[in-house]
Amino acid sequence: MKKFINKVDDVVVEQMQGMAAAHADIKICVEPKYMYRSDSPNSEKVALVSGGGSGHEPMHGGFVGFGMLDGACPGEMFTSPTPDQMLECASKVNGGPGVLFIVKNYTGDVMNFDMATEMLHEEGIPVQSILVDDDVAVKDSLYTAGRRGVGTTVLLEKIVGGAAEAGYNLDQCADLARKVNTNGRSMGIALTSCTVPAAGKPNFEISDEEIEFGVGIHGEPGRKRIAHTTADELTSMMANGILEDEAYTRVVREWDRVKGEWEEKEITNEPLKKGDEVIVMVNSLGGTPLSELYVVYRKLAEICEAKGIKIVEKLVGSYITSLEMQGCTITMLKADSEIKKFWNAPVNTPGMRWGV
Amino acid sequence: MKKFINKVDDVVVEQMQGMAAAHADIKICVEPKYMYRSDSPNSEKVALVSGGGSGHEPMHGGFVGFGMLDGACPGEMFTSPTPDQMLECASKVNGGPGVLFIVKNYTGDVMNFDMATEMLHEEGIPVQSILVDDDVAVKDSLYTAGRRGVGTTVLLEKIVGGAAEAGYNLDQCADLARKVNTNGRSMGIALTSCTVPAAGKPNFEISDEEIEFGVGIHGEPGRKRIAHTTADELTSMMANGILEDEAYTRVVREWDRVKGEWEEKEITNEPLKKGDEVIVMVNSLGGTPLSELYVVYRKLAEICEAKGIKIVEKLVGSYITSLEMQGCTITMLKADSEIKKFWNAPVNTPGMRWGV
Repeated sequence: MKKFINKVDDVVVEQMQGMAAAHADIKICVEPKYMYRSDSPNSEKVALVSGGGSGHEPMHGGFVGFGMLDGACPGEMFTSPTPDQMLECASKVNGGPGVLFIVKNYTGDVMNFDMATEMLHEEGIPVQSILVDDDVAVKDSLYTAGRRGVGTTVLLEKIVGGAAEAGYNLDQCADLARKVNTNGRSMGIALTSCTVPAAGKPNFEISDEEIEFGVGIHGEPGRKRIAHTTADELTSMMANGILEDEAYTRVVREWDRVKGEWEEKEITNEPLKKGDEVIVMVNSLGGTPLSELYVVYRKLAEICEAKGIKIVEKLVGSYITSLEMQGCTITMLKADSEIKKFWNAPVNTPGMRWGV
Repeated sequence: MKKFINKVDDVVVEQMQGMAAAHADIKICVEPKYMYRSDSPNSEKVALVSGGGSGHEPMHGGFVGFGMLDGACPGEMFTSPTPDQMLECASKVNGGPGVLFIVKNYTGDVMNFDMATEMLHEEGIPVQSILVDDDVAVKDSLYTAGRRGVGTTVLLEKIVGGAAEAGYNLDQCADLARKVNTNGRSMGIALTSCTVPAAGKPNFEISDEEIEFGVGIHGEPGRKRIAHTTADELTSMMANGILEDEAYTRVVREWDRVKGEWEEKEITNEPLKKGDEVIVMVNSLGGTPLSELYVVYRKLAEICEAKGIKIVEKLVGSYITSLEMQGCTITMLKADSEIKKFWNAPVNTPGMRWGV
């Protein structure tokens, strides 16, 4: 294992320290571990808090800043953060209008954010929790019941972050977040594995001739393992996986602040159809360089045009990664005027900045 | 070789097409190959043109846009572009105030940009050419007489790009570019090799226990091959290589527009000293994820503080890469008020954007 790390036990804290050293707008707490905006708490806005296992940088810590998150809780590598991290982070950044938790659908994350939601409610802080489950590759996975939460998380943090800056209240933020999640779909391919420092060996084995189609961001198995082929074919497989995904209905739990209990809600992703406008993200899993992402984007744009899907905004780069894994994911988010408006709102974070 | 590519011969053009598809502000010509701002030519500003072998993305094509380059000429992978690319690109973006070529010190690049300079002069277009030779690792290398041109190129394109937007004339742009180059130093380490598609096999062999200290951006050998060690030690080696670099004097050739001939000029890099302000870049060679760069930045900040070197601005990410190579480079640029002013000027390119 060759990486720029020191002691395995210190990796996560040292990455946090490096980020705080490089970005004056971000402060960190190391016991328990969380990152937050240095201008927190802000009494004028809903606070957005996310978190999850480390190893997916810049998500989430790199999205702390103006126009995105107020706080982020990094777990150990590929391991959920704990409820006390979430509770302390949320208490730190809450300025009064409440806290929205953004949770990727992995069993540990869901369980711990649920506990933190209940604890925050007990403390009298208005709280809502939104689940992201956008990975069309598989239903149920290694660490997940239902679909995994992947790339749509990045777009959601940007869009709802913009809305929170604009003064949306907690329920409005939650409604928008729910809409972004049900409008978003993702699919990924891994060319290589990755190595969690504490394990010291690759997360899974894959030969020089194979790829994992539908891989998860922790290297979870996808739909199938196939022979490596051209970028155009790989892109078509990912794009068609998204474009041909049918209506997806499931029951999610959301927090009822009035009753102080969880309620079950049925939600449905409607399939993408001709004429839809979409925001797309072509994302590196960490080890795939930008240049290859453009080869993928080139084909994706052709496919969308041929299918009558209009790409209105795009993001090409490394946003949700899996350590040094070589691979790529595509996310497509059906965009209406509200989503487009907040997509284009100003943002200033280490991991995402807008042009002048 | 597993990459997101189609036919080996099409890789560079398809990457350009993908970039143009993703970024409406960038247009491309594929015969000969160059990329340029869609609002070119601009009669109000000096046009900045760079280029070099492909495989280092986002440099240079990703830096075409407001506040940086007007045009970029990609060669084949790790291969210099040709004089006709440079000539046509420069002619396309010249709006009257002339063209500044930004040239990294590799034998092929220098020879071809020299020819293009003479040809552009013949056509009556004011032209100046600036060499970047900032890599302190080795004197003379696989493709270079003198020091190689690496990370300072990125900072130079940003800073002189800002000055050109602000109305600096051609000589002023060249003077500032020369100052940035003589104020900049870089050093890199490779953990792994990389594979040029046309070769189909790794550029060099390196074992799981070794690193290449002082590597070039084409995998050129550095100072020595040593056992892999901690991030802190690797960072210290790179930082000290820069901080302990002594005065470096060499003769460079620059174009005399009045006489229409090359003149030789002796220039010297003065060593960094206590009290200096610096802009630093911690850069991934492509396959090293952002998270590890922050571990490096953490130590670099400690070292600079201990030595009385003040980091005033920083950049952490993938800016000048070597395909999918895992590795990291550090660049330190001594900054005066002029350099800081244009570092902080607005910029909007695919590869570098400023915050709100």
